[in-house]
Amino acid sequence: MTERPVIALDVMGGDGGVAVVIAAAELARERYPRLMFRLYGPEALIRAELAKAPRIAAEAVIIHTDTKVLGTDKPSQVIRRGRGTSMGLAIEAVRAGEAHAVVSAGNTGALMSMAYLSLRTMEGIDRPALAALLPTLKNDSVVLDLGANTECDAENLVQFAVMGAVFARTVLGVERPRVALLNIGEEELKGTDELKEAAALLRAVALPMEFMGFVEGDKIGQGDVDVIVTDGFSGNIALKTAEGTGKLVTGLLAEAFKTSWLTRLGYLLSRGALRALRAHLDPNAHNGAVMLGLNGLVVKSHGGANVRGFANAIGVAHDLVVADVARRISDDLANFRAHRPGPAALETAAR
Amino acid sequence: MTERPVIALDVMGGDGGVAVVIAAAELARERYPRLMFRLYGPEALIRAELAKAPRIAAEAVIIHTDTKVLGTDKPSQVIRRGRGTSMGLAIEAVRAGEAHAVVSAGNTGALMSMAYLSLRTMEGIDRPALAALLPTLKNDSVVLDLGANTECDAENLVQFAVMGAVFARTVLGVERPRVALLNIGEEELKGTDELKEAAALLRAVALPMEFMGFVEGDKIGQGDVDVIVTDGFSGNIALKTAEGTGKLVTGLLAEAFKTSWLTRLGYLLSRGALRALRAHLDPNAHNGAVMLGLNGLVVKSHGGANVRGFANAIGVAHDLVVADVARRISDDLANFRAHRPGPAALETAAR
Repeated sequence: MTERPVIALDVMGGDGGVAVVIAAAELARERYPRLMFRLYGPEALIRAELAKAPRIAAEAVIIHTDTKVLGTDKPSQVIRRGRGTSMGLAIEAVRAGEAHAVVSAGNTGALMSMAYLSLRTMEGIDRPALAALLPTLKNDSVVLDLGANTECDAENLVQFAVMGAVFARTVLGVERPRVALLNIGEEELKGTDELKEAAALLRAVALPMEFMGFVEGDKIGQGDVDVIVTDGFSGNIALKTAEGTGKLVTGLLAEAFKTSWLTRLGYLLSRGALRALRAHLDPNAHNGAVMLGLNGLVVKSHGGANVRGFANAIGVAHDLVVADVARRISDDLANFRAHRPGPAALETAAR
Repeated sequence: MTERPVIALDVMGGDGGVAVVIAAAELARERYPRLMFRLYGPEALIRAELAKAPRIAAEAVIIHTDTKVLGTDKPSQVIRRGRGTSMGLAIEAVRAGEAHAVVSAGNTGALMSMAYLSLRTMEGIDRPALAALLPTLKNDSVVLDLGANTECDAENLVQFAVMGAVFARTVLGVERPRVALLNIGEEELKGTDELKEAAALLRAVALPMEFMGFVEGDKIGQGDVDVIVTDGFSGNIALKTAEGTGKLVTGLLAEAFKTSWLTRLGYLLSRGALRALRAHLDPNAHNGAVMLGLNGLVVKSHGGANVRGFANAIGVAHDLVVADVARRISDDLANFRAHRPGPAALETAAR
């Protein structure tokens, strides 16, 4: 694209407030000099922070609002009266074509509901999916859906696979991503009918990905698959369980180092390496869950993201905008529709 | 119970073969002197190993068979021709009342299918559930179902909660276990209709447990809940993801320690504590997934369990037999049925 990428920022969304968001925009601009920002939130506060952000201050557009979505707001409430909030206005900017993407660290349910209602799904996509990067022993993997859709049919899963593969090509730079469906066994017989049908469809059509069949939850951390496709319920369970287990192991590790003066000394000597381990697992390094499949890009930052974390979320938005992800998804879906087998051929492929 | 507990052992099931199973039985007998064993497998091999197991050798009953279920056998194959295998005969012993429980380290799918068909569900239970212990920052937690049932309704989940609570009272020794339903959010509005209805039912009836509502996957490792109830698909995903993440973090840790001579020295000094950490996470310490809800107890050991791991699985079987778990489950279910609210009252409770 020759146009400069414009990102709409909900400056009131995160736990760190306006200061973190503006500092993150400044940092992101350092990495991507062509980025432009539209800032949604309280003007006086934004101006005060912009005084410390010389790179973006001159070109940033401020759209004032004092109201914001709260973490405790239910999606139904937000849908009724969220339009004037910093989040609602930032989404609206994408719908109106004033911005290419919106980044918010606010209430996930509210962001997904408002974005869905305002932007609507792109042609060929029945439901949007929430995708994010997870750390592995090798490169990061993309996992989707992470909670937008509790129940999914085979078509949804195929669409998620297509979107996840485009995401991996763009953000991870993997030319031909290895894609697998999350299941409770690797054998063809295991799992729900939806999963079996989705596997048959992905096997039947040549798409710009390496379809690997089914993968179990214990393989997520191995990094042998680039894209893990699942319904939102299982995806959310897997993501949260991985987070919890990560905390469990690092918590036990911290206790283990405290057992004696010898282990304390051991900790002191190893702490550089342990810091690298923590950095590898740090959610801020993998920040930016993306809602894919809407007419416009929506990036959700962790609520607790620091400046670097929020800047990473902006970076993800930048990469997806510059790569014209929506067009790529459209092309792959058109290709899929043109070559998808009929029910009889699918029956044969499923054997 | 005044009778001595009799355990039927499939000696051909695990990767470690007959030697591990017999040595494990010997170790378990050391802990529980009243245990008796029926051993299903090749007689000559069993006799050779019993020569090294003086505690159990005299009283052990050997039932000879040369055939076994393979790890690659599909449940459908096993159901047709699994009866004469070491696993099939050991299950049959429970059905015939010759043993109180069966322990096998063989093919999980085959064990569950054969046990289900042979033993059938106990009265008041629609489907059996696979339960296991997971390490947490505090005490172990029980998680069920772990893969026996891909899809579950509210009644199934309530029955799992009752069985899981009995399991926690027996094996963990928690008098009033805290029980929660695994969900993708803690709010009442989140999740499937089945989960919401199960929550309303568990809230409405006073059972010997503390019902905590919904819990997310990241709380599994915290140890603030004793029993986590879920359908088999999500449970399997959560269990496998936890395993995979545990391996990821310990793998990264091992790499971190190799980065320099300083970190290597740090490792040497800390290795006692790190060994304790590994032990805490070692699957052998938490061995023995239990199939609950059948007319007879079925304990599944990890295929790769060592002597200590398999002995732990036998120990779990012993505890459940001695505590007369089946009767406790029956009592709690009868209590639930007697007090369960009608649909109208449930509707009110769900608000």
